[in-house]
Formats: sequence, structure tokens, C-alpha cells
Amino acid sequence: MLLTPSAPIAFAGSHIDRADHVRGDPDAIAALMTAQARLMRLDGLDPVLTPDSLLDWGSLADAASGAELVFLGLDDEARGCFVEVPPANPSGGPHAGPASWNAMTVLEPGELAAYGGARALVGWHARHRFCAVCGHATVLAKGGWQRTCTSCATEHFPRVDPVTIMTVEHEGKLLLGRQPRFPARRYSALAGFVEPGETIEEAVARETFEEAGVRVRDVTYVASQPWPFPSSLMIGCHAFTDDGAITIDTTELEDARWFTREEVVEALEAIEAGEVGRAFGAPPKYAVAHVLLRWWVDRG
Amino acid sequence: MLLTPSAPIAFAGSHIDRADHVRGDPDAIAALMTAQARLMRLDGLDPVLTPDSLLDWGSLADAASGAELVFLGLDDEARGCFVEVPPANPSGGPHAGPASWNAMTVLEPGELAAYGGARALVGWHARHRFCAVCGHATVLAKGGWQRTCTSCATEHFPRVDPVTIMTVEHEGKLLLGRQPRFPARRYSALAGFVEPGETIEEAVARETFEEAGVRVRDVTYVASQPWPFPSSLMIGCHAFTDDGAITIDTTELEDARWFTREEVVEALEAIEAGEVGRAFGAPPKYAVAHVLLRWWVDRG
Repeated sequence: MLLTPSAPIAFAGSHIDRADHVRGDPDAIAALMTAQARLMRLDGLDPVLTPDSLLDWGSLADAASGAELVFLGLDDEARGCFVEVPPANPSGGPHAGPASWNAMTVLEPGELAAYGGARALVGWHARHRFCAVCGHATVLAKGGWQRTCTSCATEHFPRVDPVTIMTVEHEGKLLLGRQPRFPARRYSALAGFVEPGETIEEAVARETFEEAGVRVRDVTYVASQPWPFPSSLMIGCHAFTDDGAITIDTTELEDARWFTREEVVEALEAIEAGEVGRAFGAPPKYAVAHVLLRWWVDRG
Repeated sequence: MLLTPSAPIAFAGSHIDRADHVRGDPDAIAALMTAQARLMRLDGLDPVLTPDSLLDWGSLADAASGAELVFLGLDDEARGCFVEVPPANPSGGPHAGPASWNAMTVLEPGELAAYGGARALVGWHARHRFCAVCGHATVLAKGGWQRTCTSCATEHFPRVDPVTIMTVEHEGKLLLGRQPRFPARRYSALAGFVEPGETIEEAVARETFEEAGVRVRDVTYVASQPWPFPSSLMIGCHAFTDDGAITIDTTELEDARWFTREEVVEALEAIEAGEVGRAFGAPPKYAVAHVLLRWWVDRG
């Protein structure tokens, strides 16, 4: 089975070198905070773009006085790249808004990935100004890859939430579902958070049964995607079922159906052309669900 | 490529039905809190076993007065299964101690999985009594699958931290490393947390380069494992490299080396017999690293 996805993964492929060895070295970080250092400008959590649709990088002089700065890493000229932690309850979060949807369609992949990583990180900082263990204030540490409690000294690390997202196959058709909040006619892969105490495969099986009443077998991993709204790791999988009966959980889905390969191909071609498919609207190219559908039709 | 791991996954395969639909229904939970309900007895975060090496399930009458109770799900007789949130800074956490290591060797797989899921969950509760957004107290909600801030009403969900763990292959040999804290002669797969803004494959590549100076290609997913110390999702992968030169990061590893298939086979057979291999000591059966090594030698 070909496991390499045939479509690119949005939010993957940042060119910034995370330079892990620098993070724990305050002198090394200070030495990078020069006039050459770059500051990724954000509007709350939203991206700020230039008229040419590039990320609008400024300099550290643009940061607010006393702002907490996160060290993102080194660019390809070994300049330090930073981003400022926004105030509590920043605008533009935690879900994707118009500025982020626009960035997904216009930014070069490496820049979109740099933005996504920065957004997930500063969004985490903005939501973790206090210690969950004791309730006292936390401060940024390790170049922004940690927060430390000012009272009990507990170390807190950026959170990444694993989410399974899966297509299920039965007699050559694919199970896709529709959430009430989706655009008109959109159907997509089912998805849900991995919980404590389960494998990826168990999470796929549980979520598919909970949402659609379908029991799966032979779960395989296809591709993953960092999704910074607010900080998910989407884990894309494919599975099979021997029983096509669907019982939807109406608190999660308003519909779920089996689609033929021809319908999926037509829907993918339509959305890649900026249209809605005849049978249904496919997820957009920057969603890992799109990659899963494209992978399924391409492997034949 | 055979993707089904050939060894069982410790902490997977709980028989408890998570019964997601019950969690948000206080009346349904209350109706399950009968004399038939089961309470998983813990000592801090450590498991309590019967003389027959089973989990020591009691009844809700064993819970402390006013204790927060987590609804784990339904057993195969549809009885409610619960566990009590321990006090702050519970004994036995967050890393695995002697009682947990013992449980991994003596508990039946389904019971070990039930314990692991419960431990990860109540450990999260014990570390999240306060709101990271505003610093005020939180209270248990949704049967223990949420905590809610008593001041700002932010909803907090149990945390699962994705970790990549990977074997790397070069000219038929496998890269394994040794951390200073390992038992004598133990070598295992390299590993590290997935960070915001990267795919699983990018995390594998970054960690392998950071820890061993090795650039990988063709990363494939092999198997995953919930690891409740404190709440990781281990994502086991395999990759290849075209350059066998190793440069270790001495803050992470004290050694890393290439091992032949024969050495890995001998080490696995030795540890499965309770011995240390001649070339090196393999990771124990309950570690997903063991599953990765067994998968690699079995696929030939």
C-alpha cells in the first residue's frame, strides 16, 4: 500500500530551524536579539500579510515594551525569528477566522507552516498565564517553549492535542459525514480527539462507532497535519467496515452517507476548481480530510 | 509492507465501554451510582492489586466523602465504573514507579489498559485544579471528562501528549540510543514530543537529527500506545537514512549505535526470557519500542 499522501499537507514544511539547543541557553537567545532579528507580526492570533501576500515580518523594535517573546528558531540566514505573546483573550482565536482562511489560500506553504506553528504556540501562552496545579502566575521560560510557575515552580509545556480523522470504506464506497456548522453541501471525514488510555486505532474505532454506528477493522495511518486552531495534531487514517448500516449521533452530525469513488473524484475536481461537486462539496485543499480523499481515489 | 504490529500493545485493549453519551448526562451518571457500581481502587496514582494480581475494584462506598468521581465507562455487565480523583501531588506520579512496573508484568491486558486510562485521567485532574487562563479554581464536569473554571467558565479537557518514537535503518542495521537513566546495557528507540506546528513525520526527522545527527527519509507509522506516565500517546515509526554517521546530543543520550538484525533478534529473545542480550538489553515487552524492534525483525 502506498502510504505517501499524494497532496501536500497545509501547515507542514516550515523552513524555520527550531534550533532546540538555543532554547535553553538565555545567552544564545540574547545574542540573536539583534537588529537583524525578525518578529512575525500578528493581529491578536491572526496573521498579518504584506500587499504581496507574504507574512509581514518586522523587527524586535516593533514588539511592545515588556512583551513576552517566543523564539521560533532560525531562518535560512541564521537570523533569530521571534513572535510576541498576545494579551489574554487575543482576537482571532481559538478557531480559524477569515484572516486565517485567507492565509491558507494565499500563503506559500513554508510561510503558512511558520505562521501555524507560531500561532499554536502563542495561543497556548495566552491561555496559560496561570499554573493549573496551584493557580499562581506563570512566566515564559526556555525561549517560549515552557512556562514556569512563579510559586510552585511546576514546568508547563506547549500542548498539542492529537485528533483522529478517518475515512471508512465499504464495498468500494467511502463514509463521509456532515456537521451542522459546515458550508452548504459539504461532507467530510469523521473526526474526534484521542482520549487518555487509547491507541490511534482505538480512537478511530470509537469515534466512528459513536458518530455513525459503524464498526471498523484494518485501520491504517495515511498522513498527519498540525492544525493550529487551537493546537491539534490531525492524524489521518483509513479503515474498512463489513457492515454499511449507519446510525448517526445527531449531537455530532446531521447526516452521514456512503459516496462512490466517482462521486469523490468529481467532488475533489470541483473544489480544486473552486466549485461545489454535484453529489457533495469536498473539504478544501488545506484540510487533511482533502488529502485523505485524494489519497483514496489516487491509490485506485 | 505489513503494518500490523506482531506484538501486543501494553495499555491498549480496555474492555470498559467509554459510553460517551452518558458523560454529559448527570441523570444517567447518577442512575449508575448504585451498589453495583465499581470503584477502581488506587494508592495515589498507583494501582492496587488483589492477591490474585487483579485490579482491586471496590464499591462507591469506598470513596472518600465529597471526593470528585470520574466516570470511566461501563463494564461488560453494564455496571458503571468509577475512579476517585486523588489529592493534589498524589503519590506514585507522574512517572512510573515500582507498583506500575509490577502491574505491567502481572495484569491481564484489558485490566492494564483500564488502569492506564484511569491513571492518566485522574493524574490530569490532580494537576488541573486551577484554571490556566485566569488562575481560579476548577471543578470536575461531564463525568470527569472536563474541568470547568468557577470564575471564567473556561472548559478544560484531559490532555494527551503525542510523542514520536522511532527506529532508523541504514544498510540493514538499526539505530538505537541509550539514555543515562536506562538500566545497564539497555538501548532503545529514540523518542521526543511532537511540537506545535509539525507533522508526525517532521517530528521524527527533527528528533532524530537533534539527538543523533541523523537525517531520515521515508518515515512510516508502525503502531501507537497510550503511556500513562503522565499521559503520552506514543506514536511508533520507522525510517531510513542514507548516511550512517552519528553525532549524539550528550544532553539527551550517552550513546547511540547501529545494531545488526542478529543482535536485535538475540536481544529480543533474551529479554523475552528475562535476560539481558549479549550485544545490548532490549526494551521490555510493555514498551512500544519493543513492539517496533519486534516488527522490524519479523518483517524480515
